[in-house]
Amino acid sequence: MNLKNKIEKLQQIKSNLYKKDFLLTWEKSESDLLMILEVADILKQLREQNISSKVFDSGLAVSIFRDKSTRTRFSFASASNLLGLEVQDMDEEKSQIAHGETVRETANMISFLTDFIGIRDDMFLGEGNKYMREVADALDEGYKNNVLSSRPGIVNLQCDMDHPTQSMADLLHLIKYFGSLENLKSKKIVMSWAYSPSYGKPLSVPQGIIALISRFGMNIELAYPKGYDLIPKIVDIARNNAKNSGGSFNISHSMKESVKDADIVYPKSWAPFHIMLTRTDLLKTGDETGLNNLEKSCLAENAKFKDWEYNEEKMNLTKNKNALYMHCLPADISGVSCKSGEVNADVFEKYRIKTYHEAGFKPYIIAAMMFTNKFKYPSKILRNILDRNLKRAGV
Amino acid sequence: MNLKNKIEKLQQIKSNLYKKDFLLTWEKSESDLLMILEVADILKQLREQNISSKVFDSGLAVSIFRDKSTRTRFSFASASNLLGLEVQDMDEEKSQIAHGETVRETANMISFLTDFIGIRDDMFLGEGNKYMREVADALDEGYKNNVLSSRPGIVNLQCDMDHPTQSMADLLHLIKYFGSLENLKSKKIVMSWAYSPSYGKPLSVPQGIIALISRFGMNIELAYPKGYDLIPKIVDIARNNAKNSGGSFNISHSMKESVKDADIVYPKSWAPFHIMLTRTDLLKTGDETGLNNLEKSCLAENAKFKDWEYNEEKMNLTKNKNALYMHCLPADISGVSCKSGEVNADVFEKYRIKTYHEAGFKPYIIAAMMFTNKFKYPSKILRNILDRNLKRAGV
Amino acid sequence: MNLKNKIEKLQQIKSNLYKKDFLLTWEKSESDLLMILEVADILKQLREQNISSKVFDSGLAVSIFRDKSTRTRFSFASASNLLGLEVQDMDEEKSQIAHGETVRETANMISFLTDFIGIRDDMFLGEGNKYMREVADALDEGYKNNVLSSRPGIVNLQCDMDHPTQSMADLLHLIKYFGSLENLKSKKIVMSWAYSPSYGKPLSVPQGIIALISRFGMNIELAYPKGYDLIPKIVDIARNNAKNSGGSFNISHSMKESVKDADIVYPKSWAPFHIMLTRTDLLKTGDETGLNNLEKSCLAENAKFKDWEYNEEKMNLTKNKNALYMHCLPADISGVSCKSGEVNADVFEKYRIKTYHEAGFKPYIIAAMMFTNKFKYPSKILRNILDRNLKRAGV
Repeated sequence: MNLKNKIEKLQQIKSNLYKKDFLLTWEKSESDLLMILEVADILKQLREQNISSKVFDSGLAVSIFRDKSTRTRFSFASASNLLGLEVQDMDEEKSQIAHGETVRETANMISFLTDFIGIRDDMFLGEGNKYMREVADALDEGYKNNVLSSRPGIVNLQCDMDHPTQSMADLLHLIKYFGSLENLKSKKIVMSWAYSPSYGKPLSVPQGIIALISRFGMNIELAYPKGYDLIPKIVDIARNNAKNSGGSFNISHSMKESVKDADIVYPKSWAPFHIMLTRTDLLKTGDETGLNNLEKSCLAENAKFKDWEYNEEKMNLTKNKNALYMHCLPADISGVSCKSGEVNADVFEKYRIKTYHEAGFKPYIIAAMMFTNKFKYPSKILRNILDRNLKRAGV
Repeated sequence: MNLKNKIEKLQQIKSNLYKKDFLLTWEKSESDLLMILEVADILKQLREQNISSKVFDSGLAVSIFRDKSTRTRFSFASASNLLGLEVQDMDEEKSQIAHGETVRETANMISFLTDFIGIRDDMFLGEGNKYMREVADALDEGYKNNVLSSRPGIVNLQCDMDHPTQSMADLLHLIKYFGSLENLKSKKIVMSWAYSPSYGKPLSVPQGIIALISRFGMNIELAYPKGYDLIPKIVDIARNNAKNSGGSFNISHSMKESVKDADIVYPKSWAPFHIMLTRTDLLKTGDETGLNNLEKSCLAENAKFKDWEYNEEKMNLTKNKNALYMHCLPADISGVSCKSGEVNADVFEKYRIKTYHEAGFKPYIIAAMMFTNKFKYPSKILRNILDRNLKRAGV
Repeated sequence: MNLKNKIEKLQQIKSNLYKKDFLLTWEKSESDLLMILEVADILKQLREQNISSKVFDSGLAVSIFRDKSTRTRFSFASASNLLGLEVQDMDEEKSQIAHGETVRETANMISFLTDFIGIRDDMFLGEGNKYMREVADALDEGYKNNVLSSRPGIVNLQCDMDHPTQSMADLLHLIKYFGSLENLKSKKIVMSWAYSPSYGKPLSVPQGIIALISRFGMNIELAYPKGYDLIPKIVDIARNNAKNSGGSFNISHSMKESVKDADIVYPKSWAPFHIMLTRTDLLKTGDETGLNNLEKSCLAENAKFKDWEYNEEKMNLTKNKNALYMHCLPADISGVSCKSGEVNADVFEKYRIKTYHEAGFKPYIIAAMMFTNKFKYPSKILRNILDRNLKRAGV
């Protein structure tokens, strides 16, 4: 379908994204998600055809990262720049849990000429998403009271519960790989825990993935060693989604069993839910000894599951011995980035370029989230962009 | 008055801001200040009407911050972006007092394609403003000798003497709150010291406020415990201004007495002038022990004045028990950000949103300082902006 | 010649810069270099005439600096901004030697919407340029496999072998100072080691200078104390260039002898080649004791050559006692930035402004490298820029 038709067809999607923050995929309708996927795809094509998508002649996009990040930071910067916004990083001195007046005030102080705030806060279970809502409330109050002439939108760049820009990019990758959203129906995808020599990896990726892809009729296997549970509430969401969309949802405690006949595998380490809760408590009280002991015992526990490595033996059990391997990157690659890790080096190499493709959708997903937040009729604005036909590079 | 008329009326203001740095308000005429206030107001309205004020198609705005800052940094970034300039932070490794060839050379090296340099240097009494003038001299020399094709303007983002972007934003806030600059005549404003559990807070805010607002016929009470003097020279400026503008200037040593019948109160902690001088000497010699002892003795001295908290008892003494409370933020709020501080929590909450409004003028004041430095006929350029009618967001 | 004619004349230069990285000047033809010099000059004039050269409506320029830098960082930021690109700094936590999958992956992750990557990596002999080529290979692979919709160009902002943006800026400075590239023929230039109280200064400036200027018929004296050799391979390149271009190349071990009748002198400290090799080995193994011992012995060795200071006595030996003094800045100035250093204070002061002029060409050289990488027909695009006649500042 050509770009013009794609843009016209957007009018048929009844979404409710205008002036809404993007905090959790499960707060959005399927139409909302579809709209974002389509707009992302169109923005990507515009860029590839050297047509400028700049829709802001000035304006800031503020990034608040409470831990280190390269790829999400660049994705956010790229998305902002694509639309014409300048990124300003809001450095917080420490990854402290700030609340109350400080959040309320700061949210307004950085927002006078700001269109979007991207927040990454995935360190503390029970805190990250809550913090985003505190910022949102502060912005609502500021807008209502004419402190802010417009209400900046918030984009969740990873929290304790969800990682929507990742899961939506992953979904767009699947759509492109299998040809259409419809084609994903009845595909078997395995979201599997995998061994890593580090501990405390966030839960947001596996949670985000199962809660999102369960909405499109896929058959989902969530595999992990006993004890490595995700937040139960989010697993329930995935289970219900699967039922409602005509797919299935199953929990397995064997990587080997789970990958049989899989179309897609997503082997990725995470820390158990209850450990992350304990860790949050220790972090709050600043209990260094407790944290060190927790890390030691967790690493020892992890080490029991070194066989949870995705390798050729397991790959050969999948559909046509060729399930699509996915990862949010960077992966812990055995013999490359660590002694033994999430994935075997040969298997990773086979799918390496595909993981890069997967990552490449993220800037456009973020841009689409911004675009649909800012413009009530995305189709109309995109048509204007196409008609304007301004070169991105060149004069 | 509509925007078009406001812009036309600018022609009647005979200002002398073109190609001039903005270092101290008392170096500027009333017409200069009026021009900046009007341009700031117009730029704010343009933005609120979604009309782009972008007047630079490229160009850098360099920020030099010699101590931590969130709100002024974002105000500078917002102002620069509004006009089309990209901010580049010039990080100095330490807040050291650099002089001589280093300043001269660096000033030129960062300025080849730079339109503005914003400097914050408020740590060392007798140094901050001096440093800005060293940079200015270096830029003059570079421009004169064709090193620089244009002379970047300097904006004082807070020094040891003045904080002009703050005081001008505060003034615009007062104008909006009371309806006009004329309405400020004969209003009673109290710039009062207030207790804070920290020490070494800069003098530039109270000094900047009294030196500026004294020019518009207001009745000023400067209140502080004996010994907490400001720089005498600047107090003299305020006293003379008050006399010349038909207002009054009085020093009081009781917060309670001073706030009686006040229209406006600005309770804010600062360190005594003589302490800041001693501190600068100790900092210069790197005398850590001396600095620690000074801090201890100052905090002990401060603690004698915990009753210098602005609270309901004092508020009830003001005009209609409802004087406008002002603060440059963040305030030390008793029971919120500290045990006991500058202001009582209930009183702060009552005026909290108003302090956000107050802060919201700063980006536009900075943008107006840049605008009037760069364009000889601001009215003409603003008219072109209005006629061009380019959407800031949207196509 | 007016700007229009200059732009037309570009068509006669047969360069091969389109889609090529700029890593080493000696990989480029004289036509390539000439094209960059001309485009830089034109971009500078456009800017001085307040004509916008913005050719990107969005896009990122990523900077990777593996050590501290102010002037090159600002030059890169200025160049990027001039053309319409937004700079994003890629901070690497430490100046570590990263290779393999990390480089390959990161290079792609930061490049989805990126037009240029500027890299500075001059700490480790044998590593810096190699690292750039690893990044280049990763980008090639990403582009070939549709990970990247366009292949970002790489600009060498200083490596262990060359500092092309510096040497090209220096060359443009010489052309402007002496009137034309032809006028440089038979001029005597002395690239001389000079004493500095620090050690470990990179070799890239002297190497870059001799390898570049030797191509234009100049008579080159490379002067240094015995033992302070540059990389032999690069000295050979310079020697061959000189022969082929009708100039000469001579090595001297006396600053005093070498500067006789010189038209140009470039006194600049560097560390001996073999020391830098040893240092790289020690850095790789993390041998702190070895590094400290190396530093001590080097500083002691350096101290034997304090008379390698460029001063009035030496200046008076040069042509008309007035050879053009050059430096990449900051210089170690005796009695100013150090007790005794590369250059005497009076001599430096005499040429200080000229060193600023010299530095001022760098942003335009970088912009020209980007411009010629991105556009196949620079002349055509520049003509469009001239015809478009968009104000850089003002509306």
